[in-house]
Amino acid sequence: MNTQVIRNVRPMGTAAVDVLINTSVIEAVLPAGSASPELPCLIDGQGQLLLPALVESHVHLDKTLWALPWRPNSAGPTRNDRISNEQVLLKDFAIPIAERAGPLIEHCIARGSLYFRSHVDVQTAWGLRHVEAMLALRQRYQHLIDLQLVAFPQGGMLIQPGTEELMEQALALGVDLVGGIDPAAIDRDPVRHLETIFGMAQRHDRGVDIHLHDPGDLGRWEIERIADMTQAHGLQGRVMISHAYALGAFAPSDLLGLADRLAELGIAIMTCAPPQVTVPPVAMLRSRGVTVCSGSDGIRDTWSPMGNGDMLERAMLIALRFGWSKDEDLAMAFDIASAGGAQAMGIANYGLGVGCQSRLLLLPAENLAESVVSRSLQRTVISNGRIVARDGAFVTNPA
Amino acid sequence: MNTQVIRNVRPMGTAAVDVLINTSVIEAVLPAGSASPELPCLIDGQGQLLLPALVESHVHLDKTLWALPWRPNSAGPTRNDRISNEQVLLKDFAIPIAERAGPLIEHCIARGSLYFRSHVDVQTAWGLRHVEAMLALRQRYQHLIDLQLVAFPQGGMLIQPGTEELMEQALALGVDLVGGIDPAAIDRDPVRHLETIFGMAQRHDRGVDIHLHDPGDLGRWEIERIADMTQAHGLQGRVMISHAYALGAFAPSDLLGLADRLAELGIAIMTCAPPQVTVPPVAMLRSRGVTVCSGSDGIRDTWSPMGNGDMLERAMLIALRFGWSKDEDLAMAFDIASAGGAQAMGIANYGLGVGCQSRLLLLPAENLAESVVSRSLQRTVISNGRIVARDGAFVTNPA
Repeated sequence: MNTQVIRNVRPMGTAAVDVLINTSVIEAVLPAGSASPELPCLIDGQGQLLLPALVESHVHLDKTLWALPWRPNSAGPTRNDRISNEQVLLKDFAIPIAERAGPLIEHCIARGSLYFRSHVDVQTAWGLRHVEAMLALRQRYQHLIDLQLVAFPQGGMLIQPGTEELMEQALALGVDLVGGIDPAAIDRDPVRHLETIFGMAQRHDRGVDIHLHDPGDLGRWEIERIADMTQAHGLQGRVMISHAYALGAFAPSDLLGLADRLAELGIAIMTCAPPQVTVPPVAMLRSRGVTVCSGSDGIRDTWSPMGNGDMLERAMLIALRFGWSKDEDLAMAFDIASAGGAQAMGIANYGLGVGCQSRLLLLPAENLAESVVSRSLQRTVISNGRIVARDGAFVTNPA
Repeated sequence: MNTQVIRNVRPMGTAAVDVLINTSVIEAVLPAGSASPELPCLIDGQGQLLLPALVESHVHLDKTLWALPWRPNSAGPTRNDRISNEQVLLKDFAIPIAERAGPLIEHCIARGSLYFRSHVDVQTAWGLRHVEAMLALRQRYQHLIDLQLVAFPQGGMLIQPGTEELMEQALALGVDLVGGIDPAAIDRDPVRHLETIFGMAQRHDRGVDIHLHDPGDLGRWEIERIADMTQAHGLQGRVMISHAYALGAFAPSDLLGLADRLAELGIAIMTCAPPQVTVPPVAMLRSRGVTVCSGSDGIRDTWSPMGNGDMLERAMLIALRFGWSKDEDLAMAFDIASAGGAQAMGIANYGLGVGCQSRLLLLPAENLAESVVSRSLQRTVISNGRIVARDGAFVTNPA
C-alpha cells in the first residue's frame, strides 16, 4: 500500500536504481528502469546521488535567533561571559522559541537533515520554559523528523541549586537524555557532577550527553572518569561526549588505549571540528572503532551569529579541519555527518537498504566526495512519503 | 554619457542611496529616490547591500580541473609529492586550460569576484604553455575583470635549471609579477633564491609575490630577509608574502617589531586561513598597519578537490579560523576579502565612492557581518555597465 517509486538514483554514488518506498521504509531497490510503470512516481531522480537524510547530532535549537533581524553579538570573551550574556538576553526574550527554532528546523530539513539531537537549556533562570517549547516543536514536526532532546544545564548544575530537580522534571516530561557540562571548569566538582548525571540517567533509564570543553590533561582525566561511570552505571552504548577538545591536545598515538576503551564502552565522540581549538583525532578514533558524529552546535544565537545547519557544509569543514582531500576521507566526513550520527544517537534502520527508513536526500553529485565538496543546494528531501524540501527550500504545504 | 542608475541600495550597510554609474566609474551617490526618473535604471536594488566587487588575491587558475567530471585526488602526502603528481598529470592533460579556467573565472565572477591575482605555473616541464593560456584568458575577460598574473616557479627555480629564463620570458610576454616558492625547503638556497627573484623584479620593474610555507623560525628568518631585499631593491609597496605560515608559530606579541617593518615596507600578507596549519595573526598585523588579503588558493585541482572561489565563503572561513563573532570582526573578514586585497594588489579607485570603479556586488543582507555569515547566493554582479551575474549564475550573453 502507498508504494511510490524514486526512479533513477545512485545510492551513495553506485549504479542507478529505482527505489520503492512507502511512508516509513524502503520496500525494494531494483535496477534502474525496472520498477513497474504502474507505480506512482514520487520523483525521477535523473541519475542524482541518493543519500540517507543527514544527521544533526549536536545543536542548540532553543537558543537560536534564526528568522529574526540581524543582531550584533554582544557577549564577552570567555565561556562564562557568554553564558551570563545569554541568560540576560534570553530570560525575557520577546519572540517565542517556536518562532525562531521552528523556521530553523524547516531550514535544516531543507538542507537535508531529518535527525536531530538538540540540547535544551534547563536552568533556574527560566525553569522548564525551553523544554516545554521544544517538546511542542517536536510534536509539530514529528511526522517529518526525529528530534532527540537533552536536558542540558548550560549555566551549571551543582553551582545552580534547583537545576538538578529541573532536569529530573524535564526527563519526566519526555526529554530523552541527561546532559552535563564541564564538570571541572563550570561545576568545579567533577566527580560529584558525573555521579549526579550518571545516577539520574540510570534511574530514568536514559542516555547521557555531556559537553566537555575542559582542556588537555584535565579533560582527558574527565573522559577517563566518564568511561568509569559509563561502566559502573551500565550505560554502555548510550553515552556521548560532545566537543572533547582535550582529545586534540595529545598525539593520537598517545590515545590508543583510551580510544579502545571508548569503543568498548560504546561512548561516542561528537565534534564540530572548530578550527581555533584542539579537536579529537577523528580518523584515529574511527580506526579504533569509536563512533564519531558531528553537529552545528549553536546556529545564529547569542554565542555567535555563525552557522546555517547545513550538515554537508559541516562535513566540508571537518575535511578542511584535517586537511582531507582523498575521496575516502571525504566519504569519511560524509559518514560522520550521517551514519556516524545515526549510530551515536541509536537511530534504528538508518541507511539505504530494504527496511531502512525512507528519509532520503537527493542531490546532483557524482559521489560522496563531490557531495561534500560541492554542497549543491539543489537538494530534494523526502520524508513521510512526500517531498518535504526542493531546491534547498522547505515545502510548506506538500501535495 | 551612458549613465545608468542603481536604485535603492545600501552601500556597506549604510542608508539607502541611488548610485549613478557609467561603464567604468561611479559618477554620483544620491539619497535613495532622488536620481532622475529619466535616467535608465540598470537595477532596482530594493534595499539590498551594495558592495565593491570581491578581490581574489591568490588563486591558481591555470591548474584547475573545474568543469570536468569528478576526479579523485591521487597525490601523496607531502608538498613535494603533490608537486610531482601535478607535473605528471598536467604535462599532457587533454583538456586545455581555457576550458577549465575559463568556466572557473565565470563561476568566480558569479560569486562576486572581479579582481584576481593568479599564480601561473612556469616550469621546464611545460615551458610557457600555462602563461600563454592565461594571457589569452586575460584578454578574453579583460572587459569584465582585472587579472594579475604571477610567474610562479611551482617546481622550484634554482633546482630546475632553465626556470629562471622562462620566468624572464613570461615577464616579457606581459606577466605582471615575479613569483617565488619556499626558498629554503624547495630551492634550498634561500639567499640566492631571493636575490634572483628580487633582482628580476627590479630589472623588469615588477612586484614580487612569494609562496612561503617554510615553518617557524626558518620561515620567520626568511620573512626578515624578504624585508631586507624589499628595502634593498626599492620594492616598497610591491611585495606580497603568500601563506606565511611561520607567522602563526609565534605569540603575536613576539612579532610586533616584524609587523611594524612589514607595514613600513608595504609588504602585504596573504592568508587563506587554513585550519590545519599555523596562520598569520591577521588582527594583530592589521592593527600594526600591515595589509592583509586572502584568496582561494587551489580550486578543485590535483592538490585538492576543495574550493569554490567564493570570497564571501573565504571571509567566513577566516572568521571561523580566528573564532570571530562580533560585527566588527566579521567586517574585518570582509575587508580582507575586498579592500585588503585591492590595497595589496595595488588596484586604483577601489571602493564605493564617486570616481571608484563601477564593479559592484549586490546581495540581500543587513550589513557586512550578515553578508559574511549568510553568503547569500542571490548575488547580482555589475561590471562594464552591465549585469554580468544574477542569482549566482554568470550571464553569458548580457543584453
